[in-house]
Amino acid sequence: MATIPTDEETGEFVRTGPHFDARITADGRSGWPVEPGRYRLVVSRACPWASRGLVSRRLLGLESAISVAVADPIQDEQSWRFTLDPGDRDPVLGIKYLAEAYHAAEPEYDGGISVPAVVDVPSGKLVTNDYPQITLDFATEWTAHQREGAPDLYPERHRDEIDEINAGVYADVNAAVYEAGFAAKQTAYDDAYRRLFARLDLLSERLATRRYLVGDTITEADIRLFTTLVRFDPVYHGHFKCNRNKLTELPVLWAYTRDLFQTPGFGDTVDFDHIKRHYYQVHDGINPTRIVPNGPDLSLFATPHGREELGGRPFGDGTPPGPPPAEEVLPAQW
Amino acid sequence: MATIPTDEETGEFVRTGPHFDARITADGRSGWPVEPGRYRLVVSRACPWASRGLVSRRLLGLESAISVAVADPIQDEQSWRFTLDPGDRDPVLGIKYLAEAYHAAEPEYDGGISVPAVVDVPSGKLVTNDYPQITLDFATEWTAHQREGAPDLYPERHRDEIDEINAGVYADVNAAVYEAGFAAKQTAYDDAYRRLFARLDLLSERLATRRYLVGDTITEADIRLFTTLVRFDPVYHGHFKCNRNKLTELPVLWAYTRDLFQTPGFGDTVDFDHIKRHYYQVHDGINPTRIVPNGPDLSLFATPHGREELGGRPFGDGTPPGPPPAEEVLPAQW
Repeated sequence: MATIPTDEETGEFVRTGPHFDARITADGRSGWPVEPGRYRLVVSRACPWASRGLVSRRLLGLESAISVAVADPIQDEQSWRFTLDPGDRDPVLGIKYLAEAYHAAEPEYDGGISVPAVVDVPSGKLVTNDYPQITLDFATEWTAHQREGAPDLYPERHRDEIDEINAGVYADVNAAVYEAGFAAKQTAYDDAYRRLFARLDLLSERLATRRYLVGDTITEADIRLFTTLVRFDPVYHGHFKCNRNKLTELPVLWAYTRDLFQTPGFGDTVDFDHIKRHYYQVHDGINPTRIVPNGPDLSLFATPHGREELGGRPFGDGTPPGPPPAEEVLPAQW
Repeated sequence: MATIPTDEETGEFVRTGPHFDARITADGRSGWPVEPGRYRLVVSRACPWASRGLVSRRLLGLESAISVAVADPIQDEQSWRFTLDPGDRDPVLGIKYLAEAYHAAEPEYDGGISVPAVVDVPSGKLVTNDYPQITLDFATEWTAHQREGAPDLYPERHRDEIDEINAGVYADVNAAVYEAGFAAKQTAYDDAYRRLFARLDLLSERLATRRYLVGDTITEADIRLFTTLVRFDPVYHGHFKCNRNKLTELPVLWAYTRDLFQTPGFGDTVDFDHIKRHYYQVHDGINPTRIVPNGPDLSLFATPHGREELGGRPFGDGTPPGPPPAEEVLPAQW
């Protein structure tokens, strides 16, 4: 169903960047001013890039300011669709396919349709699918509408360090798992595998003595690493052949992932059913039978992690978010 | 390259039984008398069914009585071939393809070409591809040519128990991993997965307090379980979606497998390179990219297992085999 774009010579997976990169800002300089209720975040709960936005929105308490549309984890030939909703339409945007918002913004657009996507509700136009910027703007441009006690996910004094960590995590973790799984040649796979596990070893070392990646609080850097790690054993280990180790065999990263999973705003955004069905059923180029494995045992995500001993102040001077809005509460995950 | 036969309705993998079931016996009643040097065992070191014969032959010291031909782990459209040998021909049988021995025995044969296969060297004819019987006959019909100190792998007084264990291991382990991996429908996969792990749990329980499956010595039952377990993490866990746990996460079975692996006659027959390349490159119906994963860390097979504490007498009143013949020594496995 999904054609995987790879370089003919090297066999490397080619990721296309976001095409729509407008920013929604507090000062409205881009023409898209921050305005509660105006924008809708379209996600798939399967997608690690989109899930950053779900976590960030929960941690910051932006649920009532920015609504969410959840696409079916299984795309069809017209890509992401709202088949989980009554009448197969998103109830707010009134569209059946996310592509409609892309074409409302740019009728001639014929590139990929990706999540996360932020859509302007009044006009139905896509504003941005620029995933690395979306969460940074949630953290820094939407401050007036964040909940009381919201953490600072992109603190000024740590931005250089966060950006540096993010660059390594992007290249060697977030993107590398896809580059391993979608490689069309052994050398391309080998390279991605090597970079992935070398980086995970570095991250294990870093996180052995500190609870979070940067400073002593949860930041954007943790969100970006989390959304890949939480998918590691259910999907990337087998489906993408990232099999030097399971995450459960990397004690520091496994404890770190459980710590975040058990923190309000992280695990409560994770739908393993969407995750597993999406990867195993959409990528029939690497899983032609479309069979979804039954393992591993996901209840292990709830086991004690012991990371409190490292100290750290998860929300800094802030507080944890309350439970998700009733309509966003997920079914039991195991 | 390999078409996987599955039932159209249930999606279940359909295994075809051996077609050639003549037995080589001490009394020659079948027309095929035991005779040292007369027969050649054709194997792939990738294949768990064929590897039973390799282990059994080593434990019993039948190396000089029954020679071995090792096929290339990658079949082509004419199936198993001798492309590892000079001139791409088996030096003893003089054939390029195992199929030639099948057709020498039955010119009109058009079924599958499988290993293990025992070939009569003088006539070039296949005698048997009846894998469950081949090792039983090595143990019971070839006694006159076994080494001094050879163990009794199929002791009279334990045969009922061995047969019973073997039946369960065959259905729910040896065959079930293939049924999980080759299932064309989710229900067929689910059923195989459930049976597999239920059986592994039972076997874990059994082996928690006893070093070997039956009696207190190594028997045919251990050989049959070993050849599947040794392939579990390198192949079945990911490629066949047997992913409730890695073998390394099942402490009893993992220690049991390492114990056997480290016993002369077991690990020295195992070629992980052949194993991994075969499964990942031949089954392009489930791995279209034919990329071979780099994981897991195979050196763990050499780690201490602690099973000596359970007692047991690996070779009963016999002794361990010496090292393999020089021409059968495998390269370092990690």
